[in-house]
Amino acid sequence: MEECPKTWFEACARILTDPQNQRVWSIIMSLFGDLAQQPGDRLTGSALSRIIMPVGIKPEAIRVALHRLRKDGWIDSARSGRASAHFLTDYGRARSAEVTPRFYTRRPDTPTDWHLLIAEDGPGQSALDEMLLTAEYFSLARNVALGAGPAPEVSVELMSFDVEARAVPDWVRARACPADLAESCRSLGDALEQAAALLPPEGEITPLQTATLRMLIVHRWRRVVLRMPDLPAAFFPPDWPGPDCRSAVFRLLDRLPRPALSELDAD
Amino acid sequence: MEECPKTWFEACARILTDPQNQRVWSIIMSLFGDLAQQPGDRLTGSALSRIIMPVGIKPEAIRVALHRLRKDGWIDSARSGRASAHFLTDYGRARSAEVTPRFYTRRPDTPTDWHLLIAEDGPGQSALDEMLLTAEYFSLARNVALGAGPAPEVSVELMSFDVEARAVPDWVRARACPADLAESCRSLGDALEQAAALLPPEGEITPLQTATLRMLIVHRWRRVVLRMPDLPAAFFPPDWPGPDCRSAVFRLLDRLPRPALSELDAD
Repeated sequence: MEECPKTWFEACARILTDPQNQRVWSIIMSLFGDLAQQPGDRLTGSALSRIIMPVGIKPEAIRVALHRLRKDGWIDSARSGRASAHFLTDYGRARSAEVTPRFYTRRPDTPTDWHLLIAEDGPGQSALDEMLLTAEYFSLARNVALGAGPAPEVSVELMSFDVEARAVPDWVRARACPADLAESCRSLGDALEQAAALLPPEGEITPLQTATLRMLIVHRWRRVVLRMPDLPAAFFPPDWPGPDCRSAVFRLLDRLPRPALSELDAD
Repeated sequence: MEECPKTWFEACARILTDPQNQRVWSIIMSLFGDLAQQPGDRLTGSALSRIIMPVGIKPEAIRVALHRLRKDGWIDSARSGRASAHFLTDYGRARSAEVTPRFYTRRPDTPTDWHLLIAEDGPGQSALDEMLLTAEYFSLARNVALGAGPAPEVSVELMSFDVEARAVPDWVRARACPADLAESCRSLGDALEQAAALLPPEGEITPLQTATLRMLIVHRWRRVVLRMPDLPAAFFPPDWPGPDCRSAVFRLLDRLPRPALSELDAD
């Protein structure tokens, strides 16, 4: 049985914790992406522990995750005496920067131009599978992909059209916005509202508390926003909770301005 | 072993005879469609025989075909004394008129607007199969159909886009213009050139000879033109023989002006 939270901070941390994604290495990457993505940015080992441990993650799990991130080339560490500092490698920084614009866009620009790529049935399929892997395409069917912008010069095996959507049937909406994604959006939106109601005025929140809560928000938003399709409005079901969820994310982040890294070791 | 043709007319009739489609009822419908499609138009039994028999079709085969066409409601017959006259029923006239514009268009208008219909994989397929049957759609894939004009209001199960083709791969061209259709075009084009070289000046051709030759041309063109896709230029292979074949058809028909029905019994 879980203990009842004793403070607003414990309550918020519990509410905002992603119920489905507690992979520690991934949480650490969310933290670096949010707070320490610039070259030269470092998080000390003690700051890292004090930000992450309130989420219920043990020091041993943090050590294992850091080891893995170092081994995979995402993070590097340096020691000075008994203290350690951790920072993104160039590779880790590049991968983090790739997804950052999606995370932090308050109003995604929906492109006005779209194109379709169509593959031949059978073996021709593979030409399209490559596009679906390498670029941001929405798969309308095994052999049909919808992409933003005008049709690019692609494989000679693909038929391409510049298109404008006319009628969007329910099966396409369900494919674009699956029920579990809508559910994740709604549950994150609810959690953000609950946390917002508990949050004290800005001056009463410590830099470490801010870092922890931001990490939880960004980490959970990540799972939602990376799956949210970039599609014309007609592709979304009428009750699509995406925009409300996005607004709630930024309302709460705005109340938790990013702390300076130097503040995180000041306690 | 076939006998050698003794006259220019026998030679032309032999050259123009469709090597693959000698269904007599279908030839008779081509003849009515070309010469006697208006309400009130009639062909006497003797004119019919004299037009069709030079193609190598026996009177018995003509009788059987007329019986079938009457039974199916396409043609009706009337007797006065020993003479008989045959004419299209309203139903037969309507069916004939449906395809006439396609046959006799010298320069097909290629539409500038196009749309795509996309069906869901699996059971959703059937919604598209209906469209492919009832309207003039080009099937790009099992689940994708291209049609002329703006996207219509169709089944709520189909995704529709207004489209403009960008890149057309070879597999699409091969699907639009299969090799056997190109071969039929080329072989008809060759036959028309050969017949044109044999044809005497207009005044030396009898109305019955004209009727026979027009029937053969129209009947053979039918098989080609009904399969020719109505698609933007980019969908055709660079060596596509369609336009040349069409020109040759009208060059020869222009040298064989439609005789008046009254002339066909005058001999």
